[in-house]
Amino acid sequence: MRGGSAINRRTVLKLRQAGIATLRSVKIKILLCGCVALTLLAVANRNCGSSLSLLGWTGGVASLDRSSSPRGRYAIVMNTWKRYDLLKKSISHYASCPRLDSIHIVWSEPDPPSDFLKRFLNHVVDMNSRNGHQIELIVDINNKDSLNNRFKDIKDLKTDAVFSIDDDVIFPCSSVEFAFTVWQSAPDTMVGYVPRMHWVNEKEGEDKYIYGGWWSVWWSGTYSMVLSKAAFFHKKYLKLYNDEMPASIKEYVTRNRNCEDIAMSFLVANATGAPPIWVKGKIFEIGSTGISSLGGHSERRSECVNKFAAEFGRMPLVSTSLKAIDSRNVWFW
Amino acid sequence: MRGGSAINRRTVLKLRQAGIATLRSVKIKILLCGCVALTLLAVANRNCGSSLSLLGWTGGVASLDRSSSPRGRYAIVMNTWKRYDLLKKSISHYASCPRLDSIHIVWSEPDPPSDFLKRFLNHVVDMNSRNGHQIELIVDINNKDSLNNRFKDIKDLKTDAVFSIDDDVIFPCSSVEFAFTVWQSAPDTMVGYVPRMHWVNEKEGEDKYIYGGWWSVWWSGTYSMVLSKAAFFHKKYLKLYNDEMPASIKEYVTRNRNCEDIAMSFLVANATGAPPIWVKGKIFEIGSTGISSLGGHSERRSECVNKFAAEFGRMPLVSTSLKAIDSRNVWFW
Repeated sequence: MRGGSAINRRTVLKLRQAGIATLRSVKIKILLCGCVALTLLAVANRNCGSSLSLLGWTGGVASLDRSSSPRGRYAIVMNTWKRYDLLKKSISHYASCPRLDSIHIVWSEPDPPSDFLKRFLNHVVDMNSRNGHQIELIVDINNKDSLNNRFKDIKDLKTDAVFSIDDDVIFPCSSVEFAFTVWQSAPDTMVGYVPRMHWVNEKEGEDKYIYGGWWSVWWSGTYSMVLSKAAFFHKKYLKLYNDEMPASIKEYVTRNRNCEDIAMSFLVANATGAPPIWVKGKIFEIGSTGISSLGGHSERRSECVNKFAAEFGRMPLVSTSLKAIDSRNVWFW
Repeated sequence: MRGGSAINRRTVLKLRQAGIATLRSVKIKILLCGCVALTLLAVANRNCGSSLSLLGWTGGVASLDRSSSPRGRYAIVMNTWKRYDLLKKSISHYASCPRLDSIHIVWSEPDPPSDFLKRFLNHVVDMNSRNGHQIELIVDINNKDSLNNRFKDIKDLKTDAVFSIDDDVIFPCSSVEFAFTVWQSAPDTMVGYVPRMHWVNEKEGEDKYIYGGWWSVWWSGTYSMVLSKAAFFHKKYLKLYNDEMPASIKEYVTRNRNCEDIAMSFLVANATGAPPIWVKGKIFEIGSTGISSLGGHSERRSECVNKFAAEFGRMPLVSTSLKAIDSRNVWFW
């Protein structure tokens, strides 16, 4: 009997333990299901109108119409060169972005734009002008073919913000809008999508530098320039580039058909003593690969960095590791 | 024979398939092992001196000694109230941070600080003064107990940057340093760790607002204020707060012992027309939970937002979704 009782007790104990384990596992399963369901619900609702009310916040975002002020809109300055299809695509895209005030096309070809091209561009811009706001389109025709043309001062520019862009780079309007709001908080510095770095060339000494491309930025998380192929900056830097950039640097840029973007980075860093801001954005390169994929590109860019540092008498670039992201697109903080 | 041959062929086919599958699986395993090994190597090397050389970038980061200029260092303005242990802990911590120029303790108690406390704080500050730079410690004793004291203008402040902080909030020096570099790129706006939002109260109309706490910011990814309990701003806003903040708002802050931070956010947004910048940082709250955990907190904060918007004659706060992160700490872009 004693043994039987012990076996019974053991069986009861086992059953009880199994019961508790099952209950625990059921509880865990219910909890897990709940989590998954809530997450799905959250994902489905996030960024929707109902997302706030779901958690009890019924208020909407206060919107201010600041688009009429000089800081409420921006101008696009687009550099182009004999790629009319790309130009048409680009202008058609950017003209649809909200808060765009005007488009300035930097034209440095021997022949002026054809009547057909002008008609097409004007039509696109007119089509996208809305809410009583006419987007202005200006083609700035230059006699001299120089990369300095992209930073020519623009008389009577209505907006403070300039979005400098190549004709073969497309960002969704939401990305442009986001970068513009970042620039509004930091109007003295450059705000762009394409970061680059200058590294001290330890083999050659403290004041010799190496140009660091995308992979070195990706790897180190550090940069000191954002390229003007896709960046916002204050219009005052156009004037500064024309009036105060050493002539030797401008000549170098024209002669080598390169490095106007590094020159602009030097200029802004020299004026602010601060680094630029890199904004995360989805980039679509619609043209063929640029000069950066050609052989000897890094060497030529390093040469520019060293040449410009010597001309400035010091290295004005400041490195940073700041990345500006859109927190609406981030899930775990 | 035919059947036997078919079976043989099937067997050979199966074996061949199994062989291919095994080979594939081995290949995949080798590939996976390679990936894991490379990742581990990368993690081990990242942010180390050798991380750049690993991928062929041998240059170091160019460092500039800008710490002697007004924009190269910052001052801490710390609000405190009868929590001497927290004050001692906080000062001991922040005094060790590089690029700190001076500490200003805002003292609004009836009794002045004890000699013991003063000796302790001075000792801590002296211990951390290095490289020939003496950190200055100033206790600003106020007769009137008002939260406006934390924004009193500081005569002869050497730095442009003010790091406004409560005595019970600790950030690692690396976080402070990062936020400071963000502020250097955006010196006109507030740069802080604690974001808050104002929502339009849709039930009551367009010009009525609800104060949104942390969870609404987390959920929506949107904010329009950063709290002065942990934020960088330009010293010019201290003067502006004293000279241009409506007296009714300052009286409201003193009477209700609340909302000086909202008032400062209104002031800066009104001056810039731009949103602040939220910096991701690890926060350690060393005190007991603050007033935000008390009942009715949200209602009182909403009342402040509405009161101040009425006094300003409009809602100056601008919402944004920018989150500034340290790209050295991010792995996948």
